Amino acid sequence: MSDISDRRRAASSGRAPTPVALIGAGRIAAVHAKSLRDPAVRIVGVADPDRSAAERLARELGTDAYVRWEDLLELDEVEAVIVCSASDAHAEQVAAAAAAGRNVFCEKPLATDLDGVDSAISAVERSGVVLHVGFNRRFDPGFAELSRRVGSGGIGRLLQLRITSRDPEPPPTGYPRGPGGLFADMAIHDLDMARYVSGEEVVAVAAVGSSIVDPLAGAAGDIDVAAISLRFASGALGVIECCRISTYGYDQRVEVHGSDATAWTTNPLPAVTVQADAGGARSSPLHRFFPERYEQAYSAELAAFLSACRGLGAGPAASGNDARAALVLAQAAQVSLLEGRTVPVAEVGSPTTPSTADLP
Amino acid sequence: MSDISDRRRAASSGRAPTPVALIGAGRIAAVHAKSLRDPAVRIVGVADPDRSAAERLARELGTDAYVRWEDLLELDEVEAVIVCSASDAHAEQVAAAAAAGRNVFCEKPLATDLDGVDSAISAVERSGVVLHVGFNRRFDPGFAELSRRVGSGGIGRLLQLRITSRDPEPPPTGYPRGPGGLFADMAIHDLDMARYVSGEEVVAVAAVGSSIVDPLAGAAGDIDVAAISLRFASGALGVIECCRISTYGYDQRVEVHGSDATAWTTNPLPAVTVQADAGGARSSPLHRFFPERYEQAYSAELAAFLSACRGLGAGPAASGNDARAALVLAQAAQVSLLEGRTVPVAEVGSPTTPSTADLP
Amino acid sequence: MSDISDRRRAASSGRAPTPVALIGAGRIAAVHAKSLRDPAVRIVGVADPDRSAAERLARELGTDAYVRWEDLLELDEVEAVIVCSASDAHAEQVAAAAAAGRNVFCEKPLATDLDGVDSAISAVERSGVVLHVGFNRRFDPGFAELSRRVGSGGIGRLLQLRITSRDPEPPPTGYPRGPGGLFADMAIHDLDMARYVSGEEVVAVAAVGSSIVDPLAGAAGDIDVAAISLRFASGALGVIECCRISTYGYDQRVEVHGSDATAWTTNPLPAVTVQADAGGARSSPLHRFFPERYEQAYSAELAAFLSACRGLGAGPAASGNDARAALVLAQAAQVSLLEGRTVPVAEVGSPTTPSTADLP
Amino acid sequence: MSDISDRRRAASSGRAPTPVALIGAGRIAAVHAKSLRDPAVRIVGVADPDRSAAERLARELGTDAYVRWEDLLELDEVEAVIVCSASDAHAEQVAAAAAAGRNVFCEKPLATDLDGVDSAISAVERSGVVLHVGFNRRFDPGFAELSRRVGSGGIGRLLQLRITSRDPEPPPTGYPRGPGGLFADMAIHDLDMARYVSGEEVVAVAAVGSSIVDPLAGAAGDIDVAAISLRFASGALGVIECCRISTYGYDQRVEVHGSDATAWTTNPLPAVTVQADAGGARSSPLHRFFPERYEQAYSAELAAFLSACRGLGAGPAASGNDARAALVLAQAAQVSLLEGRTVPVAEVGSPTTPSTADLP
Repeated sequence: MSDISDRRRAASSGRAPTPVALIGAGRIAAVHAKSLRDPAVRIVGVADPDRSAAERLARELGTDAYVRWEDLLELDEVEAVIVCSASDAHAEQVAAAAAAGRNVFCEKPLATDLDGVDSAISAVERSGVVLHVGFNRRFDPGFAELSRRVGSGGIGRLLQLRITSRDPEPPPTGYPRGPGGLFADMAIHDLDMARYVSGEEVVAVAAVGSSIVDPLAGAAGDIDVAAISLRFASGALGVIECCRISTYGYDQRVEVHGSDATAWTTNPLPAVTVQADAGGARSSPLHRFFPERYEQAYSAELAAFLSACRGLGAGPAASGNDARAALVLAQAAQVSLLEGRTVPVAEVGSPTTPSTADLP
Repeated sequence: MSDISDRRRAASSGRAPTPVALIGAGRIAAVHAKSLRDPAVRIVGVADPDRSAAERLARELGTDAYVRWEDLLELDEVEAVIVCSASDAHAEQVAAAAAAGRNVFCEKPLATDLDGVDSAISAVERSGVVLHVGFNRRFDPGFAELSRRVGSGGIGRLLQLRITSRDPEPPPTGYPRGPGGLFADMAIHDLDMARYVSGEEVVAVAAVGSSIVDPLAGAAGDIDVAAISLRFASGALGVIECCRISTYGYDQRVEVHGSDATAWTTNPLPAVTVQADAGGARSSPLHRFFPERYEQAYSAELAAFLSACRGLGAGPAASGNDARAALVLAQAAQVSLLEGRTVPVAEVGSPTTPSTADLP
Repeated sequence: MSDISDRRRAASSGRAPTPVALIGAGRIAAVHAKSLRDPAVRIVGVADPDRSAAERLARELGTDAYVRWEDLLELDEVEAVIVCSASDAHAEQVAAAAAAGRNVFCEKPLATDLDGVDSAISAVERSGVVLHVGFNRRFDPGFAELSRRVGSGGIGRLLQLRITSRDPEPPPTGYPRGPGGLFADMAIHDLDMARYVSGEEVVAVAAVGSSIVDPLAGAAGDIDVAAISLRFASGALGVIECCRISTYGYDQRVEVHGSDATAWTTNPLPAVTVQADAGGARSSPLHRFFPERYEQAYSAELAAFLSACRGLGAGPAASGNDARAALVLAQAAQVSLLEGRTVPVAEVGSPTTPSTADLP
Repeated sequence: MSDISDRRRAASSGRAPTPVALIGAGRIAAVHAKSLRDPAVRIVGVADPDRSAAERLARELGTDAYVRWEDLLELDEVEAVIVCSASDAHAEQVAAAAAAGRNVFCEKPLATDLDGVDSAISAVERSGVVLHVGFNRRFDPGFAELSRRVGSGGIGRLLQLRITSRDPEPPPTGYPRGPGGLFADMAIHDLDMARYVSGEEVVAVAAVGSSIVDPLAGAAGDIDVAAISLRFASGALGVIECCRISTYGYDQRVEVHGSDATAWTTNPLPAVTVQADAGGARSSPLHRFFPERYEQAYSAELAAFLSACRGLGAGPAASGNDARAALVLAQAAQVSLLEGRTVPVAEVGSPTTPSTADLP
């Protein structure tokens, strides 16, 4: 929680709060809105095509509601835009905000296809604004610590990496489903984690999957349980296990096996109480889902973005190229699943846009 | 962290922030100051006889510094006073603040002797203000959960309670030491926990102790390691282990053994990373000391006080009588140590002031 | 350890000890020899082409040494043969022992190719003797418990299974290495576990691998780190992680994720001592390798075989068809690795020999 | 389990088995009988005043039954006697066995009063035979490891020791109960552990207790839950928590807090399976009671005794003086409980008999 305190300190040190506009008023917007209730931030507007949603969130935040997101960019005072809209609108909004000279925080995905990613990145590069992409797990203290240990040689040479990723339940009924959805929507976080924790690029992907827990996914041609094997540039291997249901809560673990040591994170427990009887000792349940599990990470993520907007150090933020690299991997996984073969990542695309060379 | 969000929500819901004055600018004042940087609070002054300390903290909080605490009570706007001064000044300041019609949050101890406790409680009762005493551990989620489980019958009948309490290091050189100090200053928290978690009064105390780790304590006639056995009214037993040093961090555990089940808290770890090599698997270290370990509890504690000032529900706050009961137990422990006998608590004093009947 | 006691009880109950012959005097023979020092067993000979090895082990066991294994089958009294010789001799020895009417316990693999497996199974079927194959992990209490829970519906429908399998170090220098070795020699245990714990057949295999830790493996065309994805008949998925080195000991874990619950085993620790200091809390190291980790399982495995020889209940023993099924999976994994594709298991072979229909 | 293997190796190395007689055929005799079914031992007789009990156990062990224990001492071949009779017969039987030149293993207590202890020790000293007293926990690998670490300075200077000791249920209805029973019968093991793990003598004892779970205990003037505080010679403190019931199994833990590190044992779990669902993650239950929890320790204990009989190294065996010291502490605890004071141990007795000077 020290980051929160730091921000308050900054806020109370005399600097004027950063004026921020929020595009989107749905589930993830509500998550970020919690972090935006901060003396260091002044929210100047919320836009959503669903007027009542926009008004509800605006009222909660003590700000104005808009239906058209473009109107927010016309407010002169806006310094930063938080993009939490539907995924297929991200690329256009990021490009427009960047063209208007506003720093942009964009929820993942940056775009739903590589062209969208590239045009968003190009707009950002032309205008020189700050772009952070919402891979919130980079701000989870446990995963960040693993990334540091791998990067510093603390476990020797990386040999194996494993990511376990289980959601408590499938997305709500109305959530868009379709082929490749599990990879592009859920596993994309894990694919980014694989790059972030290993500090390496993935060179080949082999995926298997099934549709056994979410009939809506199956009907839409998607899977709901997956095993993704990765081969990194160094020869190290990775495994990602994804599942759309979990009775025991939101399970998010990473393990790295190195030549000198092996390190892992356990799921942080909301409570540290254990109770034992004749049936054994029972610990407290996991966090239910991402808003609780990553509350601290979401807050630290926005704080890092706001710091970057003020020209200060940026933390483990995800760049446009990180967004591109993860999308390439998600697409490679879908090709692997459909064609039943191990897919060389280069076949699908580069981890960077033609003009840039951002490292993970 | 949800309490923080709740407070922000309250703050942003249009209510004016509560004007608060802070008496004391030392170590524990700095801890509370972190929680006071909140939109729901407006700090109107900090007083400390050490002018430079007062000025430093006032500057950090963007408020005014005072040398005389009495001056804070003359500020008309002050609604609540946070007492973080030296322990021997508490009783007078609480009584004066109460007489001046201000709600009071007082760091433990409420007073250093029973007369002081009683006069503070009387002043509060006469004026009808809110008084919360700083037994912060009541707001620790793990201990609160244990208290709830015992209270709800979740472990059956309570049979044994154990509290382990180890500080990383003795108090700083200048800290006041003297006979009974370990009980009155350190174990008093554990004695309050024993009442809070069990929901019972202690009827007898047997203490043994040694001076083996802090030469300053020994020179001052105090001990630095203690084992306190408790007998509760129901016949259940308690054990408190205290030690003034601990290489592995601030160890704070409670275990309750009941006729139906046994429950305990583990120390919450700041990080969930484990690393294994030929020497075994090593988890992350504990929090170093109370400001880190109880950051969330301190924040929730002040929030509960501020809610109570606004007439809202109060949470597991400690009352004046709770402060009295814990002090009586600390004194009974010292009598037991000195006289080598099991001391009936009634011999030392009642858990309530003559005029009140507050239950734990 | 209760199984040991049970055997002693059996032994002391008046029954004559079973006369057993041991083929092979190497590493795994030494492991089994520990279990054979039992009142219920009388060892009547040890054979190894390395005369001094045979003599050393025979002396230890208080029995006679032979160079030719065929000589053991000529000893009239022999009721059971334990085959611990080099892998490429297994099939012929099992077939000969079966033809000679002796019950056979054969270390894995039953044969190094499917023809060998089939001829061994045929010989056993013709003679009607008992054949147990040495998949010792089926007798590990933790894995057996997982298998039971999956089988009884205790976790609902199986969705995901994960096996982590890390050896402390590569095989010794002289150990035979070659393409497919990691799958056929090391992962074959994990592939058997996948079938045993899930109670299902695997229908497709996708493997990736690298040679990064054992130069001898790389030189011989084998890998030393692997990720094997499995698709079970029900649509459930499996993941096996293998690595030939591990600084922290022999890591052997299984996790099953079901629609109702998720269950896993942790590595049993040889000692339950934890020590904490400023660097965190350090648990005791894992068992170093299989002889220590599976000491109890090896003993229970032989006990089950000896019980079966006496016509009593058999426990979770692996049959000839289990050996065949695991070998088919190992070969499918190697095809997948070489050809970079997901391999339907039926393409490689059936989990049963043509004439039999043994379920897992 | 390596000790078992070692014994088998010894047995198979040509040495004749040790002829042993067993006095007593009750609960603890059955426990030891499991360890006596060993090629290194030949049981030559079992005696119990309850003829049918003697006959049942003798039949199980394939030996002869006696009603009078004195008859066993007349069998010339007997080299060692295992005393598992009723506690009040121990002293006389040990003295008689020693006088007859037989090595003696005596279950705790060596005697029910100090005179009995002293006469038994004297008889042993006169005859020069081996005497081991059954403080089985000294052979528990976890407690032994703690003792070694304390002894070697591995945790620095010992500051605090804590022992948690909970039985699953009170003794059976017919078991002898009376004042001081909890201390003399149950806590005596913990008092021995305190001396064994600390490597120190206890100088003062303060005990509190209640009778709240076993009406039979209360009716007999005994307690069933206790907290015993100890002061060691160095100033270090100890705490022992005892309870006669526990729903979650047999709880036996020791923690040592030192100036450099803190170490503890967890309860070894019979199974390493964990299962998680919405109610949290549930580990496997503890061992139910001492025969399961200490199976390995009982076996190692007898092995050490048999080794000592053969003139080989003895391991952490408890001597006659260890038995005396523990009994003195149990008596001091009862005085403390009855008189409500901290009792100097020297007031009750010396940890050694007048003529000897055995260190813990």
